[in-house]
Amino acid sequence: MGELVLTTYDWVPPPPRGYVRDLRVRWALEEAALPYRVASTPFQDRKAEHLAHQPFGQVPWLTDGDLSIFESGAILLHLGRLSEALIPAGQRPGSAAVEWLFAAMNSVEMASLPWAILSFGSGDDGTPAWKTLDDFLKLRLARLEPVLAANTWLAGDFSVADIAMADVLRLVDRFDGLSAHPACRDYVARATARPAFQKAHADQMAHFAAAD
Amino acid sequence: MGELVLTTYDWVPPPPRGYVRDLRVRWALEEAALPYRVASTPFQDRKAEHLAHQPFGQVPWLTDGDLSIFESGAILLHLGRLSEALIPAGQRPGSAAVEWLFAAMNSVEMASLPWAILSFGSGDDGTPAWKTLDDFLKLRLARLEPVLAANTWLAGDFSVADIAMADVLRLVDRFDGLSAHPACRDYVARATARPAFQKAHADQMAHFAAAD
Repeated sequence: MGELVLTTYDWVPPPPRGYVRDLRVRWALEEAALPYRVASTPFQDRKAEHLAHQPFGQVPWLTDGDLSIFESGAILLHLGRLSEALIPAGQRPGSAAVEWLFAAMNSVEMASLPWAILSFGSGDDGTPAWKTLDDFLKLRLARLEPVLAANTWLAGDFSVADIAMADVLRLVDRFDGLSAHPACRDYVARATARPAFQKAHADQMAHFAAAD
Repeated sequence: MGELVLTTYDWVPPPPRGYVRDLRVRWALEEAALPYRVASTPFQDRKAEHLAHQPFGQVPWLTDGDLSIFESGAILLHLGRLSEALIPAGQRPGSAAVEWLFAAMNSVEMASLPWAILSFGSGDDGTPAWKTLDDFLKLRLARLEPVLAANTWLAGDFSVADIAMADVLRLVDRFDGLSAHPACRDYVARATARPAFQKAHADQMAHFAAAD
């Protein structure tokens, strides 16, 4: 392992603060007590150097020595290989953590993020498009609800899967999308009560506030 | 490695045929020339045993001996550890394959799949919801276009990242969403021209046709 440097925007407007994806990486680093520092890239003017690290012009990316990694899911997987606090040892729990990490990033977030974008905008405008995407999210939450009612964490012990899933679900919760799914809501509450989340969240808020 | 068994639905209606996600796994298995067999689970009546393997009631899942894995991304990663034809050796190309696998499953598919669902339904209905999601997809494609114009494959050699990305993009292409992005369209064409894709696609079509 080399020096770990997490890069995020230098500033973002208030609405996304507390939800920028460097939070997932900060949270993992805090859970694993890995040393790291935070660097900034301009939000307003995304230059070629930004795209060389993150081809979609987003954040975060992580450098581990001279290796640069983008996509929060890939970064969580990389950190999981550095610490059993993030991906449990053993083939079966390790495999469960990885499949649930993908479940958060793909099966659930492909339904929840478009729903959140629409909720932030026009919301329920009575159109078929809204109903289609609202039903898509509800289908996923209905399947997740019994899993989270029966399990404290997705892969036995707390893992990167919970960092990803709780962060995905708390954006739904922000727009009151978990009211019919109490086990999902309780899961978000217990995940975000962890000291590592609290520290990561406070650090992100302070990082962006410092640039105002 | 144990016996590899890929489970998909016993039947699906015609529209999704050729696009069911077992295709990604078939494709990877064919690329790596790994021996496997295909099993079926009922499409019409998804029982507890299905949910025990795939909590969202979807397909595919893969068993490797007594280890059962769901999420096509997690399955591709698992197979990538069995064959350098799927994830190249070496830390840097291996890491690139994994980050681009997540990029396909998260940054791109969270924009493309909702767009495809709406395109299959009401399409461009002139609503703000449609425009929001259409813009979201175009933003991702605009960033992907120069990457695919400059690179034959995402991680140097062909890898699981290309299986995931090409499969994600070909669903957009189905609804003519790549017409303004020729490098994305050419990438889909060269990926789907590979014999392993052709075999996987023909096998999936035959599997569902056999149940009609």
